[in-house]
Amino acid sequence: MKNRIGVAILGGTGYGAGELLRLLTFHSEAEVVSVVSSSQAGKAVTDFHSFLRGFYDLKFDSELNIERLSEFSRFVVFAALPHGVSAVEVPLIWERISGLGGKIIDLSGDYRLSDGDEHKLFYGNTERSNEFQKLCVYGLPEVNRERIRSAVAISNPGCLASACILTALPFMESISGSVVFDAKTGISGAGRTPSDVSHLPHRHGSMQAYKILSHRHEPEIRQCLLQGSRVKDFQSFFVPHLLPVTRGIYVTSYMTLSSEHSQGDLLEMAGKFYDGHPFVRLVDKAPELRDVVGTNYFDMSLFVRGRQLVVVGALDNMGKGMAGAAIQNMNLLFGLDETKGLLQPSMGLI
Amino acid sequence: MKNRIGVAILGGTGYGAGELLRLLTFHSEAEVVSVVSSSQAGKAVTDFHSFLRGFYDLKFDSELNIERLSEFSRFVVFAALPHGVSAVEVPLIWERISGLGGKIIDLSGDYRLSDGDEHKLFYGNTERSNEFQKLCVYGLPEVNRERIRSAVAISNPGCLASACILTALPFMESISGSVVFDAKTGISGAGRTPSDVSHLPHRHGSMQAYKILSHRHEPEIRQCLLQGSRVKDFQSFFVPHLLPVTRGIYVTSYMTLSSEHSQGDLLEMAGKFYDGHPFVRLVDKAPELRDVVGTNYFDMSLFVRGRQLVVVGALDNMGKGMAGAAIQNMNLLFGLDETKGLLQPSMGLI
Amino acid sequence: MKNRIGVAILGGTGYGAGELLRLLTFHSEAEVVSVVSSSQAGKAVTDFHSFLRGFYDLKFDSELNIERLSEFSRFVVFAALPHGVSAVEVPLIWERISGLGGKIIDLSGDYRLSDGDEHKLFYGNTERSNEFQKLCVYGLPEVNRERIRSAVAISNPGCLASACILTALPFMESISGSVVFDAKTGISGAGRTPSDVSHLPHRHGSMQAYKILSHRHEPEIRQCLLQGSRVKDFQSFFVPHLLPVTRGIYVTSYMTLSSEHSQGDLLEMAGKFYDGHPFVRLVDKAPELRDVVGTNYFDMSLFVRGRQLVVVGALDNMGKGMAGAAIQNMNLLFGLDETKGLLQPSMGLI
Amino acid sequence: MKNRIGVAILGGTGYGAGELLRLLTFHSEAEVVSVVSSSQAGKAVTDFHSFLRGFYDLKFDSELNIERLSEFSRFVVFAALPHGVSAVEVPLIWERISGLGGKIIDLSGDYRLSDGDEHKLFYGNTERSNEFQKLCVYGLPEVNRERIRSAVAISNPGCLASACILTALPFMESISGSVVFDAKTGISGAGRTPSDVSHLPHRHGSMQAYKILSHRHEPEIRQCLLQGSRVKDFQSFFVPHLLPVTRGIYVTSYMTLSSEHSQGDLLEMAGKFYDGHPFVRLVDKAPELRDVVGTNYFDMSLFVRGRQLVVVGALDNMGKGMAGAAIQNMNLLFGLDETKGLLQPSMGLI
Repeated sequence: MKNRIGVAILGGTGYGAGELLRLLTFHSEAEVVSVVSSSQAGKAVTDFHSFLRGFYDLKFDSELNIERLSEFSRFVVFAALPHGVSAVEVPLIWERISGLGGKIIDLSGDYRLSDGDEHKLFYGNTERSNEFQKLCVYGLPEVNRERIRSAVAISNPGCLASACILTALPFMESISGSVVFDAKTGISGAGRTPSDVSHLPHRHGSMQAYKILSHRHEPEIRQCLLQGSRVKDFQSFFVPHLLPVTRGIYVTSYMTLSSEHSQGDLLEMAGKFYDGHPFVRLVDKAPELRDVVGTNYFDMSLFVRGRQLVVVGALDNMGKGMAGAAIQNMNLLFGLDETKGLLQPSMGLI
Repeated sequence: MKNRIGVAILGGTGYGAGELLRLLTFHSEAEVVSVVSSSQAGKAVTDFHSFLRGFYDLKFDSELNIERLSEFSRFVVFAALPHGVSAVEVPLIWERISGLGGKIIDLSGDYRLSDGDEHKLFYGNTERSNEFQKLCVYGLPEVNRERIRSAVAISNPGCLASACILTALPFMESISGSVVFDAKTGISGAGRTPSDVSHLPHRHGSMQAYKILSHRHEPEIRQCLLQGSRVKDFQSFFVPHLLPVTRGIYVTSYMTLSSEHSQGDLLEMAGKFYDGHPFVRLVDKAPELRDVVGTNYFDMSLFVRGRQLVVVGALDNMGKGMAGAAIQNMNLLFGLDETKGLLQPSMGLI
Repeated sequence: MKNRIGVAILGGTGYGAGELLRLLTFHSEAEVVSVVSSSQAGKAVTDFHSFLRGFYDLKFDSELNIERLSEFSRFVVFAALPHGVSAVEVPLIWERISGLGGKIIDLSGDYRLSDGDEHKLFYGNTERSNEFQKLCVYGLPEVNRERIRSAVAISNPGCLASACILTALPFMESISGSVVFDAKTGISGAGRTPSDVSHLPHRHGSMQAYKILSHRHEPEIRQCLLQGSRVKDFQSFFVPHLLPVTRGIYVTSYMTLSSEHSQGDLLEMAGKFYDGHPFVRLVDKAPELRDVVGTNYFDMSLFVRGRQLVVVGALDNMGKGMAGAAIQNMNLLFGLDETKGLLQPSMGLI
Repeated sequence: MKNRIGVAILGGTGYGAGELLRLLTFHSEAEVVSVVSSSQAGKAVTDFHSFLRGFYDLKFDSELNIERLSEFSRFVVFAALPHGVSAVEVPLIWERISGLGGKIIDLSGDYRLSDGDEHKLFYGNTERSNEFQKLCVYGLPEVNRERIRSAVAISNPGCLASACILTALPFMESISGSVVFDAKTGISGAGRTPSDVSHLPHRHGSMQAYKILSHRHEPEIRQCLLQGSRVKDFQSFFVPHLLPVTRGIYVTSYMTLSSEHSQGDLLEMAGKFYDGHPFVRLVDKAPELRDVVGTNYFDMSLFVRGRQLVVVGALDNMGKGMAGAAIQNMNLLFGLDETKGLLQPSMGLI
C-alpha cells in the first residue's frame, strides 16, 4: 500500500483540473495518479495544459482508474465536471470508492443546495441523488471545518458564493435589513469553452453585469449565511459583473448595522471570528485583487460610517474560489495541516 | 465679427482638453482658437496630443488669448484645470469675458457643491468665489436643461456623479431607505499625471475599491438628487472602484421600492422621465461598457424582484462624464441643437 | 432614381459589416439599404450590433435585395463573407448587378492572389472564377489608385498585408537581400466566432506567434511589392503575432539598404512617395498603436543605422486594414473625394 | 554560525527586490536577513510589498546590515539598485564583504559590458570600477555555468538580452549575415516608478516600439554571442516594443542559415546545446507567453523554410530575465542544485 494520498481528477481538460494539477505540484503528500478526459484520452496531460510541461508525466485516462487509486491507503477523487453531469456521475463513483476508503470532492454546484426545490429552480430539472446530497458537507472551512474533518464527501463551494459569504459571516448578528453583494469576476469563471462572453474582442476594455438578481450563487450565499443562524429576516441583492481580467473575484458588500459600532470594534469582531483561519487576511486598505491572484487567500477590509458598513473582499476564483478550496478540504478530510501545499504568495504583479 | 462659436480651452495638456479637441472635430459651428498651457507654450498642440495629428494647426498659448476670442460674436472658455486652480482662475476669467458676451464652462469640481462647508470638507480649504458659485448652473442637462439654456457659467458635473445620478433620478419618488451606488471606473479618470494608481503593472489584471464612503462625488450626487425633491430622508452608500481599463464608468445602483412595481411600470416611468433626452438610451440587457465608450450616451437598464430594484448604467467618463457633457452644455448655452457634434456611435469593439 | 450611393453589405453579422456600418454613419453620400444575414434575418441590425443603437433602423435581410439597390443610380455591394464562400458568391452577385451599374468590393482573400496555384496553396481547393479574378483590382489605393478609379470590382487587401506593404513600398528600389516583417495584431482579426485563440483567459497577459512563415498574407505582400517592380531577387520573412488587444496592427520591418542613406534622405523618399496619399502619416517617433485605432490612418516612422533600415508602421486592422480601406475604395470607384467619411481622429486613449 | 545562506537585498522597494523575496519563499536554504531601503527604512517590508503579507516579518533597513549577514557561514548580497548607483555602491560593498566570505550579485547593467567605451556610450559617464568589472562573471548560466560556479561576483544579465541570446546561441556557427531580434516586453521592465511610459491610459490597447537600434541590451547581446566564438562578421538588428501586459518578454529572431538544414536537424542541434540546462524548454509550437510568466523557464521553438530560420522564445522579464536568474546564479555560487527554489510552474492563466 502506498502511503501518500492518491489523487484522481475527473473533467481533466477543464480549468478546475488545470489549477488542481498546478497547486498539487506544491503538495508533498499528494500524488496524482489519474486525470480523466474522454475527449483527450491517451494524450499527454501537459500537451493540453502546456504550462505544466515538465511537471507531470501522465496521459489522460478515458475513465477513472480505481485500481491504481486503490493502491493507496487513502485517496480522493476531485470531480471537476459540468453541472448536471456531476449530479449523476459523482454518486455513482462514490458507490464504487466508498468501500475502498476513498473520498470525493465535487467541484460542481450539483450538491450545494440542500433544498431540492431551490436546486431545481436554479439548476434545472437534472436528477440528483438525495441520499448523496445528505452525505455531502458544504466545503467552506471557515464555516464547516469540523464537519469537513469527519466527512467523506464534499460539495465544494461556488466561487462567487465563497467571496460573498466571507465578507458577511462575522457580522450576521450585528446587521439588519438588506445586504447588497456587488461582485466582479474574471472571465476564467466562465470555464474553458470559448463563447461570446469570453471572446476577447467583446470583453477587452469593457465590463457588463449579468444574471442580475438571478444567479445560482445567491441561494447558496443565503443558505450558508443562515445556517444555524438566529437571523430570520434576511434580504439580499446579488449582482455579478464580468471584468476584463482572467482571474479573481472582488466583492463589495453593503450592510446596515443594527446599532453603531466603531471600525475598531468591527475589526476586532472580524479578527475574532477568523482567528485560526489561516487563509483570511484582514488588511487595512481596500484589497488589491492582484495580491490574491494565484493564491488561496481571501483578503478583506472594512469601512464604517454611522451605521453603514462596507466590507470589501477579494480572492482568486480558481484558487480559494475553487481548486485551492478543494485542496484545503482534502487536507482537512485526511487530517493534514489545512495549509499544506497552499502557502504560496501571489506573484504581486500580474 | 466671426459667426461661429469661438472656443478656448484652459489646461490644454490634460485629458479633458484632449477629449474636447477630439469631439470638436465633429462640431461644425465651433472653432477652437486658443489652447492654453503654460508648460507647453509654443509647441504644436498635435505634438502633444499626437492622435489629433492633421486635425489642428495650433500652438499652445501661454495664456488665454481673449483678443482672438473676442473676434467672435459668441465664444466660450472651457476650463479644464485642476481642482483648486479653477477655484481662483475661473472667476477671474469670467470677469474679463462677461462683458464681451463670452460664457464659461468649468470642468473642475470647484463650483459644483453649493454648500460652502461641504465644499471645504471635500475639496480642502481652497478659497472660491461665492458670487461666482451662485452664478454657476450645475451642468447636467437631464436635470437642468432649461436653466442651462439661459446660463452664462456652467459647473460641469463629476463623471461618477453623473452616472450615479442618472440611474436614480427617475425613481426618487418611488423608493425608500438607502441607495447603494457601486461604481467602477476606468483609469483615465485619474488624469494625465502618472502615479502609483495609474501605473500599468499595478492595475493590469487587478482591481481595487478606493475612497470608500469618502469620495467627493457623493455629496454631489446627493445634492443633485435632492434638488427640488420632496424626499427628505435619503441615505446613500457610494463606493468607486478602479477597473483595469482606460475609459468608462459602470454603475450598479440598488434601491428599495416603496411599493411593488412591475419591470414594465418602471421602464415606462424611466422612459417618460428621459423622454426628449437624446443621450439616455434605455436598453433591454445589462449595458456593455464598450457600447458607450467614446460617446456621449448613457445606457441604462433595470431589473426588479419584489420591491428590489437594480439599475445598471454606463457612460464614458471622458465623454458624457466630462468633455461630451461640456459640449452638450455649450450647445444649450448658445441655443444650438443639444446633440450637435455629439452623435457618433461607439467603436463597438475597443 | 435616388441620387446617393446605395449600399448593401453581405455577411452582416461579422466584424467587417459592423465596422462598415459604423464608418458609414460618417458618410453623407452613402445610404445603407440592405444588410444581409441568413442566420439573423428579420432581426434588427442594432439588436445585434448594439453599439449602433439609434443609428440604423434596418432589419437583416435573408438575401441581397437587388431591387432596393437598383432604385439608386449608383450602388455598391460590400461582400464581407468568409473566405471560400466569397469565391463562389461574389461572381454570382456580380453577374446580377453589373448590368445595373452596381459595383462590388470583396473583403475576403479569395480574389487577392492573381496566381491560381499560389491561391490554391494558401486558400485550399476552393473553386474561384478566373474571369472574375481578372476583373478585380487589388484595392490598395496607395498602389493602385488610378486603376481603382476605373474599376468595377475590388479585391480589398488583407489587413496584415496592407500594413507590411506600406512600410516597404517607398524603399523597394533602394534595398537588397531579405526583408523581415514582424507583425503584431489585435484579436478582432480572428473574427466574430469565439475560439481557443480569442478566448480571453488564453490571451490576457499573453502573446503568441502563429502561422510562422506560412501565413496567407505573405504571398499577397510579395505580389503587391513586386508588381511592376524591377526588383527580381526578393526574400521575405513574415511572422504575425497575437496581441492581447482588440484592434490594431503594428509592423516592424527590417531592411538592408543597397547603399548608405541618411535618415533625412529616406524620410524625403517616403514623403515624396506618399505625397498626395492622405491616410499615410509620416511621424517622427515610433507610432503609438492607439493613435490609429478607429481610423483609416497608417502611421509610420523610420530609423537608420549604417545600411540598416527599420520602418515601423501601425494601422487599425478593422479600419485602414479592412472596412476603412473598403470605403476609401468605394469613394474612388464613384469619383468622390478619397477621404469622404473617413477623416475621424482616433480616440487617443482606448 | 548559521548554516543557511544569508541573503541581503539592496534596492528593497523595487520590483527586483519584490520578485527576489517572492521566489525566496520557495527556497529552503536561503534566509533573508536584510532588505535595504533608505526611503522606507523602519517600515514593514510587507506593508510595501503587500502581496507578501504573512511571508516575511522584516522591516526595511536603512543600510546594509553586514553584522547580521556575517552570522552566516555563507551569504550573498543582491544589489537591485538603479544603473549608475550600482556602479559606485556595489564595489564598495564588495570590499566590505569579500573578507567575510560573502558574494554579490549585481542586477544592474553597470558591470555587464566589458568594453569600457561601449559602457560609457550606452550608460553615460558614470564612473565604474574597472577592477570590479574584471572580477564579475556575466551571469547567464547557459553560457557561463562553470565560471559562475567559481565566481564571487556576478553581473546579472539584462532581461531582453537573455531572451535574445538564448534564441541564437545554438545556431551561431550555422548562420551568416544579419540577425534580427524583434523583442516585445511587458511594462514591469520599466520598473516601479510611474512615468508616461507605464501610465495605463497610454498603454492599454496600445503598443509602441522604443529605443529602435539604440537599446543598451544590443551590445550586451553581441558581446555574449561573440564570446569565444569564431564568428567575426556579425550584424544585428534589435528593436524592443512595449506590450500592454505587466510581465514577460517574447522574442522572434530571424536568421539565415549558411546552408540548408531540416527542422529536425536544427531541433537536435538546439537539444544538444541545451542538454543539461534545466530551464530551457524546447516546445513544438510557438511559445505562449503566459506559460512562462512567473517562472524561471525559457520556452523556445523554431521554424525553417529553405535557409530561413525563425526562432521564437519567451521568458518572464522578472523571473528568468532578472530575479530568477539571480537565484539560479546564487545556487551555482554556493554549489547548490541550480534549480533549487525555482521549479514552480506558471499559473497558466494570468
